[in-house]
Amino acid sequence: MLFEQMRQKPFFILGPCVMENQELLYTVAEKVAEVGQKYNVPVIFKSSFDKANRTSIHSYRGPGIGKGMEMLQNVKEKFGLPVITDIHEPFQAAIAAEVVDVLQIPAFLCRQTDLLVAAAETGKIVNVKKAQFLSGADMFYPAQKVLEAGNTKVVLTERGNMYGYNNLAVDFRNIYDMKAFGHPVCMDCTHSVQRPGGAGGKTGGDRTFVPMMALAAKAFGADGYFIETHPDPDNALSDGPNMLKLHDLDALIASLV
Amino acid sequence: MLFEQMRQKPFFILGPCVMENQELLYTVAEKVAEVGQKYNVPVIFKSSFDKANRTSIHSYRGPGIGKGMEMLQNVKEKFGLPVITDIHEPFQAAIAAEVVDVLQIPAFLCRQTDLLVAAAETGKIVNVKKAQFLSGADMFYPAQKVLEAGNTKVVLTERGNMYGYNNLAVDFRNIYDMKAFGHPVCMDCTHSVQRPGGAGGKTGGDRTFVPMMALAAKAFGADGYFIETHPDPDNALSDGPNMLKLHDLDALIASLV
Amino acid sequence: MLFEQMRQKPFFILGPCVMENQELLYTVAEKVAEVGQKYNVPVIFKSSFDKANRTSIHSYRGPGIGKGMEMLQNVKEKFGLPVITDIHEPFQAAIAAEVVDVLQIPAFLCRQTDLLVAAAETGKIVNVKKAQFLSGADMFYPAQKVLEAGNTKVVLTERGNMYGYNNLAVDFRNIYDMKAFGHPVCMDCTHSVQRPGGAGGKTGGDRTFVPMMALAAKAFGADGYFIETHPDPDNALSDGPNMLKLHDLDALIASLV
Amino acid sequence: MLFEQMRQKPFFILGPCVMENQELLYTVAEKVAEVGQKYNVPVIFKSSFDKANRTSIHSYRGPGIGKGMEMLQNVKEKFGLPVITDIHEPFQAAIAAEVVDVLQIPAFLCRQTDLLVAAAETGKIVNVKKAQFLSGADMFYPAQKVLEAGNTKVVLTERGNMYGYNNLAVDFRNIYDMKAFGHPVCMDCTHSVQRPGGAGGKTGGDRTFVPMMALAAKAFGADGYFIETHPDPDNALSDGPNMLKLHDLDALIASLV
Repeated sequence: MLFEQMRQKPFFILGPCVMENQELLYTVAEKVAEVGQKYNVPVIFKSSFDKANRTSIHSYRGPGIGKGMEMLQNVKEKFGLPVITDIHEPFQAAIAAEVVDVLQIPAFLCRQTDLLVAAAETGKIVNVKKAQFLSGADMFYPAQKVLEAGNTKVVLTERGNMYGYNNLAVDFRNIYDMKAFGHPVCMDCTHSVQRPGGAGGKTGGDRTFVPMMALAAKAFGADGYFIETHPDPDNALSDGPNMLKLHDLDALIASLV
Repeated sequence: MLFEQMRQKPFFILGPCVMENQELLYTVAEKVAEVGQKYNVPVIFKSSFDKANRTSIHSYRGPGIGKGMEMLQNVKEKFGLPVITDIHEPFQAAIAAEVVDVLQIPAFLCRQTDLLVAAAETGKIVNVKKAQFLSGADMFYPAQKVLEAGNTKVVLTERGNMYGYNNLAVDFRNIYDMKAFGHPVCMDCTHSVQRPGGAGGKTGGDRTFVPMMALAAKAFGADGYFIETHPDPDNALSDGPNMLKLHDLDALIASLV
Repeated sequence: MLFEQMRQKPFFILGPCVMENQELLYTVAEKVAEVGQKYNVPVIFKSSFDKANRTSIHSYRGPGIGKGMEMLQNVKEKFGLPVITDIHEPFQAAIAAEVVDVLQIPAFLCRQTDLLVAAAETGKIVNVKKAQFLSGADMFYPAQKVLEAGNTKVVLTERGNMYGYNNLAVDFRNIYDMKAFGHPVCMDCTHSVQRPGGAGGKTGGDRTFVPMMALAAKAFGADGYFIETHPDPDNALSDGPNMLKLHDLDALIASLV
Repeated sequence: MLFEQMRQKPFFILGPCVMENQELLYTVAEKVAEVGQKYNVPVIFKSSFDKANRTSIHSYRGPGIGKGMEMLQNVKEKFGLPVITDIHEPFQAAIAAEVVDVLQIPAFLCRQTDLLVAAAETGKIVNVKKAQFLSGADMFYPAQKVLEAGNTKVVLTERGNMYGYNNLAVDFRNIYDMKAFGHPVCMDCTHSVQRPGGAGGKTGGDRTFVPMMALAAKAFGADGYFIETHPDPDNALSDGPNMLKLHDLDALIASLV
């Protein structure tokens, strides 16, 4: 039913990058629930229990899957929101599926057959992020792996392509090309403005571009929007430079519906 | 001791892409042992037990880790060769380490912290392939994850960067830049000539360029060479278009030592 | 005064790629004048007298500067439209300036100092197209060459960057970055959807994307839009695949004002 | 006859980037003549009379075509060397051809039909540099423009492709691909190590890579080498960071013949 809603109205995947603590999740989820009702659009609460590929081994990774699923379950119960999280190894699919409505496959891992199949077999909606090294047309194959594992609830998410070293560019034609496969296509408006980390040992970005990315994606036919948001992104534990300020969320959604 | 040899002489990681059957491994290993002795250089036998990220879900993946490690053990015993294989999930590190001398981290997975740490903790040499989306300078961080897990036996392998869609280009300056970290740097001469799969549902390539890639890497200071080779690559079950014919291996090594 | 109008309202540079014949110019100019009045926006009629860098030497190039300027003058008189054309050598600047209101510097030539200075010295508005090999930030320097030649009427036009071979991607962040210099920024909605020619000996494209490119550029703050249009683009003598059908022009402008 | 020599032996195009003064040309030409005799290879003296596309309008451009041709003529007479220079506008072809043996078409301009035809019509050897935005295969068309203008003495020169912003990468497969057209293929070992200028207002580079680029090009089948060299590159008026020290020229040539 959520999947049908995602086909009918612009949908929004919203939340802080990583589960810093339960309180943060509540703060953001309250706003997410509010905008969902205000604009009468499907909203899905997103947060990661583990940042498994940080540039540096010293960066904060998250609470782990056990504690993390508890925290998401609390959000679900308190606010009645559907939830999504990303998984990194096949064994995590079934565990996360006990709580989440959507399983997300990270971009770097979108060709890992076992991960896609494990996610598909839970029967949950599977949101596959397009790798930074693939075209929209190339995403036929990851989607096909989910379908052939018996799950037709596939969402594909654009998040930009590598453009030289330590930079991403979004080729919006990929949104149009992915829509040709018939699955809902989502625009990741926050990771697409990253400057992937290099010499500095962490990944930068520029949240100025987030609303522009969203509107441009709309022009190319995006069905939904993935936006990481945080009440105080400059002090967030992950992806601060590219997360939207929670305070700016309402206005951005107003511009997209 | 193998690691010291790899620091002193040009080394060669050689073998068929995937473990098609035991007989194939013996055929190739015999030649690998022969060239190692003939040119008095370190040679390491390579083959994969699982191709975990094939473009299509229908492609051949390999015998799996259990059967695969048996097959590698047989090669080791019969020809006295050190062996290497690639792993895709952290739990595989310890299992593979019972047989192999070198664990290889696939390019797409080179930022997955848990996989790097699990490999490092086996105490085996860890060969980290540079992702198609990273610069040579960016590889400081994956290497650092192995070091901080207590293992100093790191090898870094160049294999080209995405250049537009469905194409790779090798920026050889990355070899020079990675050498600055002090780890041996290897050139993957066969995957760097791939044309990553797209519309056609599989990955192409052009083995014509393999010897040229190797010599160019030598010019930029490569310490070793990774070359997939097969007696009949046009009928191989994976990576046929880019594997070197086994018959051409001896001449290529002669040009590099 | 035209330049002031271009600063105050969305402007449109419109016309067929190359001056095929006077009749074609009249047909398109009539529609251009019509939409300009209907939407009360500045419109500038564009057509080239010479396609100086066609892929093949056998392609149609145009009527040349003498005949071409006559044809533009006729358009100007008949429809009261300001006109723009592109020049390729410094000596052409003064000749074209006798007729045109805006001189355009082709993307490949945007670093040729003498061409920029010759254009600047005419006192006309100078529209510098961003090269396919430059960033938005890099365009500071070509603009500066015009300014230092004593002309402050500079327009900068985005038209995409090379993305691998025979493909362009538009990094819309460049529009935002160029706006920081204070000059009006224009989006070339038709050349940005080209597939620059290679093996086939001519350049392809896909006009499907033209309206999407325009709307995305608007999201990133574009001040104006460059759109090549033709009553029958499939039979045009240049750039057919990427030109907009004249019939679709009105609706596109309606979506942008 | 020079063209036949260039087909039979590795040839070298050598000299300072820009004609700073006559004395500099003599200093470099003396060394160029010396290495040509020592290694018995064709050498061609190169220097530019005008740097027509410097990043900034304030950069030194050179003595101009009149004075420049005089300076080249002096080199020719004093050292008996064939000479090459680059032209930027069609009218310069005939003027330069009174002195030079080879006319060079700059990379940015390699699709300008009139420039190619004007160069071809002089009957001199035409060295077309591959644009930073073209593949090796794409160079069929610029070469064809020279051929169809009646001149079969074409040389094609690789100099790297744009890789993201402000960076070049050399895809050496292009050398192999261009050789398929049957024309001699030259490697520009000094411009290929540039970091094209951006924020800093000038172009950087790293001459460390020059000898590596040359050897790698040799591995891919290059017929000749273009190497800018200067007795004191750190104080040169153009392209200092990427020029080879004149003192290192002999050793580099020794490694290539």
